[in-house]
Amino acid sequence: MNTDTPVILRDTSLRDGLQSLARTVPTEVKRQWLRALFDAGLREVEVGSFVPARLLPQLADTAEIVATARELPGLVCSVLVPNVRGAQAAIDAGAAWMLLPLSASHAHSLANLRKTPDDAVAEVGRIRALRDAAGSRCGIEVGISTAFGCTIQGAVSEDEVVRLVAAVLDAGAERVGLADTVGYADPLQVARLFERCLAVAGDRLACGHFHDTRGLGLANTYAAWQAGISRFDGCVGGIGGCPHAPGASGNVATEDLAYLFASMGVPTGLDFKALMALRVRLGSWLEGEPLHGSIWRAGLPRTLAGATA
Amino acid sequence: MNTDTPVILRDTSLRDGLQSLARTVPTEVKRQWLRALFDAGLREVEVGSFVPARLLPQLADTAEIVATARELPGLVCSVLVPNVRGAQAAIDAGAAWMLLPLSASHAHSLANLRKTPDDAVAEVGRIRALRDAAGSRCGIEVGISTAFGCTIQGAVSEDEVVRLVAAVLDAGAERVGLADTVGYADPLQVARLFERCLAVAGDRLACGHFHDTRGLGLANTYAAWQAGISRFDGCVGGIGGCPHAPGASGNVATEDLAYLFASMGVPTGLDFKALMALRVRLGSWLEGEPLHGSIWRAGLPRTLAGATA
Repeated sequence: MNTDTPVILRDTSLRDGLQSLARTVPTEVKRQWLRALFDAGLREVEVGSFVPARLLPQLADTAEIVATARELPGLVCSVLVPNVRGAQAAIDAGAAWMLLPLSASHAHSLANLRKTPDDAVAEVGRIRALRDAAGSRCGIEVGISTAFGCTIQGAVSEDEVVRLVAAVLDAGAERVGLADTVGYADPLQVARLFERCLAVAGDRLACGHFHDTRGLGLANTYAAWQAGISRFDGCVGGIGGCPHAPGASGNVATEDLAYLFASMGVPTGLDFKALMALRVRLGSWLEGEPLHGSIWRAGLPRTLAGATA
Repeated sequence: MNTDTPVILRDTSLRDGLQSLARTVPTEVKRQWLRALFDAGLREVEVGSFVPARLLPQLADTAEIVATARELPGLVCSVLVPNVRGAQAAIDAGAAWMLLPLSASHAHSLANLRKTPDDAVAEVGRIRALRDAAGSRCGIEVGISTAFGCTIQGAVSEDEVVRLVAAVLDAGAERVGLADTVGYADPLQVARLFERCLAVAGDRLACGHFHDTRGLGLANTYAAWQAGISRFDGCVGGIGGCPHAPGASGNVATEDLAYLFASMGVPTGLDFKALMALRVRLGSWLEGEPLHGSIWRAGLPRTLAGATA
């Protein structure tokens, strides 16, 4: 727990946030959104997903958003890709990283990805071969979803998560992260599982993705940070919700993550005023959608006022 | 961090919660409220405050609520007392513990208690003498408020908090707790300050009192628990709010604390269904007042469903 080591916050509102909303946000608004994230200090952003437009029309303009992202100096742009076809699109678009979902819950994997976890591992291998054959420098990161439990299956074996982390790295992924997709994780479980996976993956275990569905998003983030993780996903405005719990929050809010780390004196490079201003704009772009998160209500403490995280 | 050691949650909604609301709840409703807390498994409850009724008419029936509490078998009933006069009332009423406020922030102490922190320490000594002279077994606990920062003063010196912890124990308090009265604390600060105070107070440092004003209530609770604390204050329904941040939550919700510990497998003896049912009743008793907290929205995870904390 070195408070001098910066923490990287990756905003995923343009993908994980928008994916779970029924509405489609105009491409021009997404561009403003992306630029506002950049202006608030974000240097890693997940901007969309290369899935068939008939499945997620909200994200059909992902290639255009990647193009905008590439114009912003120093911005590392990632996209979700579910298969080889999506990987080819990510390479063609020039994304810096592709994020491959793999569900540790067998039941969730079949329901959401229509393949078993081991089929998803095999797909990682095919995507790595494609990437290398293309001479592309697009990085490959696998996000292990439902790593802490599943609404369909219930408990998920920690041994299975550890096995899958090793398997995707063996198959050619360069980074792997653990995601609490449904908000089941608790801080002790987070500490234990991240420690076990770090023993297998070392610094290739490079992301914690937490949901605040039951109020433990920040406590779990703190536990993962204590274990040695220094990159976290969030959604500005806490958008995304939880499909299994209407009205409940989903992704932890990027501004809440920024506050957590700022309060501890850990640099993230983010600017609160800009994040708060973006939150207000989100409220108008997404009129009628609930925003979540905590720090926006009370604002920064006097002891931090005016600070940049 | 022994997960077999039970954590004691003390509900303070009838004092800290009601104190910050303008309305006065009828005594008979408070009795139902207290019994519902008891039925949900709470065995420590702060039921009111012995302050002049003209200052806090909401709490003018504290002696009657103490009398009700004494009829509930095994319930440990505490009351806030600001001075010797209040201590005499607590002894007369037969409360098990009196909680004495002392603000570590000099500015907050003058503004709220109209005395300096060291004057408050001297009052602890007078109250101890009174208690001993009366042959009473009423315990004396001091709550160090604004221990992590103050809306008036800003930063509060950790050395000063450690000094005051030692001073109140020297003056005759049997227990002491640290309170993040305004929601400024962060997990690292919590870990550091509790560890320093534990070195001075040992197991007489017996309570963490956190507010969720900026979303860190549960992360801070986790950090204090990691440091070795096993008693925490909460307010069912997260009532109490924050006078400095209208609309923001104040006291961490008792049911959120219960969920945090249940998720980690730490026993608290609380019953979620009963806490949720009480929350609904609170909504009608306090119609128009905002309730706060997180777990009520999504409910327990499937992996914990039906569980008693």
